This record gives sequence, C-alpha cells and structure tokens, in this order.
Amino acid sequence: IMITRARSETFRELVERYRDRVNARLHQTLAVGTEVPRQLTEAMRYAVLGPGKRIRPLLSYATGELLELEPQRVDPIAAAVEFMHAYSLVHDDLPVAILAGDALQAYAFETLCEDPLLCTDPGAQIRVIGWLARAVGPTGMVGGQLLDLEAEGRRVDERRLADIHRRKTGQLIRAAIMMPSELVPLAAEARRDLDAFASDIGLVFQIVDDVLEVEQDTTTLGKNALSDRRNEKSTYPSLLGLQGARSRADALYAKAMSALQSLGEGSAGLRWIADYIVSRSR
Amino acid sequence: IMITRARSETFRELVERYRDRVNARLHQTLAVGTEVPRQLTEAMRYAVLGPGKRIRPLLSYATGELLELEPQRVDPIAAAVEFMHAYSLVHDDLPVAILAGDALQAYAFETLCEDPLLCTDPGAQIRVIGWLARAVGPTGMVGGQLLDLEAEGRRVDERRLADIHRRKTGQLIRAAIMMPSELVPLAAEARRDLDAFASDIGLVFQIVDDVLEVEQDTTTLGKNALSDRRNEKSTYPSLLGLQGARSRADALYAKAMSALQSLGEGSAGLRWIADYIVSRSR
Repeated sequence: IMITRARSETFRELVERYRDRVNARLHQTLAVGTEVPRQLTEAMRYAVLGPGKRIRPLLSYATGELLELEPQRVDPIAAAVEFMHAYSLVHDDLPVAILAGDALQAYAFETLCEDPLLCTDPGAQIRVIGWLARAVGPTGMVGGQLLDLEAEGRRVDERRLADIHRRKTGQLIRAAIMMPSELVPLAAEARRDLDAFASDIGLVFQIVDDVLEVEQDTTTLGKNALSDRRNEKSTYPSLLGLQGARSRADALYAKAMSALQSLGEGSAGLRWIADYIVSRSR
Repeated sequence: IMITRARSETFRELVERYRDRVNARLHQTLAVGTEVPRQLTEAMRYAVLGPGKRIRPLLSYATGELLELEPQRVDPIAAAVEFMHAYSLVHDDLPVAILAGDALQAYAFETLCEDPLLCTDPGAQIRVIGWLARAVGPTGMVGGQLLDLEAEGRRVDERRLADIHRRKTGQLIRAAIMMPSELVPLAAEARRDLDAFASDIGLVFQIVDDVLEVEQDTTTLGKNALSDRRNEKSTYPSLLGLQGARSRADALYAKAMSALQSLGEGSAGLRWIADYIVSRSR
C-alpha cells in the first residue's frame, strides 16, 4: 500500500506539473494587448482560463510521456484541445442553425486536411490551412465581427472602418487568393504583388457592397437611404457619401489592378472577376 | 470593342464553368446519407447550397489559372472558403460570447498550424490537424450536440446513447490522445491499442459525469434525482439505473485498461488519469 501511495503521489505531482504547464501556455496565448480586439480576448479568456480539470491536456501530456515526446512538442496540442473544449461549453445547447455554422467551420478545415489532391507537399498544405485559420480567427473574420458589433450606433473614422472591413470580409477573400499560391513555387515579389491585389480587392468588395445597399434602399424606399437608419452603422457611404465611397472603391480597384501588372497574361481571370466585383449592380 | 467583347464572353463562360465546378463539389461533400446526422446535413446544405455568386471560389480558381494549377487541386480550397463564407453568414450578428466560441475553434487550428515546435514533419502535423478537425466536425462533436438536441424529451436505447456520447464528448478525448501519437513512429498494433483505450476512456468519462450529476442532485435535493426532470434526457443512469451505469463504466474502464497492457510501463500516467476519471467524486 505504501508503495502504491508513493507512486500515486508522484503521479499527482506530475499531473500538477502538466496542469501548470498547460495553464501557463493558455495564459500566454490569450494575453491581452495583441491584435485581437480587447473585448474578444476578454470573452475568450473567460471561457478558457477559469478553474478546470484540464483532463484533455493531461491525457495529451500522458500520451507524450508514453511515447517519450518532449512536453514542449505536446504544448500546442494540449492548448488546442482545451480551446476546443472551452468552445464546446460556450456553444452547448445552441439551436441547429448555429450548430450548422460551427460544423461548416470545422468541415472547412477537415476538407483541407483530407483531400489527397490538394498537394503532395504537406508543408505547403500546412501553409494553406494556416492562411484559412488566420483569416477566420480572432485577428481575422471573428475579430472583425466583434469590432463591427462594437461600432454599432457609433461614428468611427475611415481608418477604423477599413480595419473592420479588412478583417470581417477582406481576410477571407485574401485567403481565397493566397491559398492556391502556396501550392506552387513563386518568387517573393510575385507573391507580394498577388497579396497586394488580394488585400485591396477584398476591401473594394465590401465598399461596393455598402454602396449597393444604400442604392437599393433608396430605390425601394423612394428617398435617400443615407439619411435613414443605416446611418446608425458607419459605412463608407455614410462617412464619405455615395460618390465619395464610389471614388474610394475605384481608386482601390485601380491600385489592385496595377499590382497584377507584373503577373502577366495569366491574371486575365482575376482581372475579369475584379471588374465584376467593382461594377456589379447587386 | 469586338475583341474585348469576345474576350469577356470567354471569361463569362470560364466563370460559369468554375461556378458549376465548385457547386458540384459542394453538393458532393454535403451529400445526404453520410455519417453526419440528417438534420445537421440539411442545415448545412441550406446554408451553403442556395444561390450564391461564389466570388471567393472564383477568385481561388482564377488564381489557380494564373499559376497554372490543375483545377482539381484548387477544388478543396474553393469548397473550404465557401464553407467559411456560409458559416460567417449564419453567425453574423451573434452575441460576443458565441463569437468567442467561434474564435476559439479557429484559434485551436491556428495553434496547430503555427507552432514551430509541434514537429518537423509536416505530414505528421497534417494528420494531427486532421484528428482535431474530424473530432469536432459534423461527424464528431457538433454531430453529437445535434443528436443530443434531437434526443431531448425522447427515450433512446443504449446503443444510440453511446453513439451520442462518443461523438459529443468521446471524439475530442480520443483526439487528445491520438494527436501526440502522430508525432512518433508507432507500430500499427500499438496505435490500435492506444486508440482502443482512447475511445473507451472518453465514453467512461461521460458515463461517470452523468452518474455524478444524479448523485449530486440527489444530495442537493434530498431525494432521488433519477425520478426528476433529468429523466427527460436519456442518460446512462436513466437507462440503466445508478448501479447499472456505474457497472457499465467499470466494465469499460477495465476494457480500456487492458488495451494499455501491451504499451508497457510508460503508460503509467495514462492509467493514473484513467483512475482519476473513473473514481473522481465531481
């Protein structure tokens, strides 16, 4: 009995050490003062950093021990499973439509992991997945949705509005373009030009969206919708007027197009879609 | 003018072809009759398969064209960005707490993509990410949450209940164990034994959770909580009684432990945690 007890004391200490280890990692990755919007960081910290048994991370570390892995190689796995666990608690008992959204996010990653045709270079595949994860994560799309919520009923300046749009809509559009570019070798300059196009065309898309919404409302309601409730939400038209917003979209579009210049004839398809984005009527 | 027109006709046809292509892929991956719960498939299909401009997939294909990539290599990227876009529409304007859950899911994947210490073998890293994606996706955790919602107020049999638990709680626990195992070479038999342990210990965890909840309610409320509202939800105690549920947990625990046998002394940590899981009092 003494021996068993002594051994289980040892394990208890081991468990404490692993728990401290994952807690330190979770605190570190959810530090305040990063590019993640403050309110979102707070909500994530609240969901993750409360007292918890950390059963899943403990299982990961114990498996690492069995396989003689250095604990620092297990750290990201331990953090990732705890993030998922915390997310599952926050989303427990939500209605089906919202669960479908959750499933689609997971399924997007599953799709990129499992497709054998994607590429024969797993390093490139990791970079592809990385683009998508950053695009939709706390510094990307979700961060933008949070900033958008915060901005409601407030007047924000153009700089702030561009930041919201670039995160909320722009990053996923940028990723749509940059992900395929990871599958081929590409000169740094060409990649930079493609990224410049990708970043700007995403913002153009959102500005044009805002403009079209005002025009549509104006047609439907028979008066200038700019004077209407949409003023509660800052948009390019509400900040710069319809004409000003159109000009801004046109200027950004021209900038995006000039970034394509160096990429040659093959960019004709991208140009066509960019034209469509800026000149579509709905 | 004639030339420009002819060229843009060509592009229009190209766009149509790409749109057809991604639509076919989306239809195929969201087919009914897979392991995904029917109601969840329907909700995902509703979110994704409606009429849409498919701007993001078009940008991915056009980039692929620029880089001379075969379209089939772009297909999974095109599908993934459209899944993300559909998810963002479903979750637009949700409250901060729910957005924090969304951010945590994305952040878990970002963590696994970006940690340089995770491993030096990107192929293994992809398999790690794949475990996590499947564990939380429509056939895993989200699927389990949906089945759990469907089962409310209904009596389900033990087989069905085990399926719900294995998806809702078990798959993430299984992934917590199987992810580190991808970072080392491991004989197929050892991996199978580890997986057997991982799968069963996840179910044990949930059965014990259900048992503890009933015991706690009974203490708090001063009567047998089994006769109470929890009966609306099928659980192991409500199906088998407290004693029956305990026995089922013990039997599964014994099975899980015997799977560890072949893995040797190094599995002491996993045994300790399994002991804790089955004998904890809250």
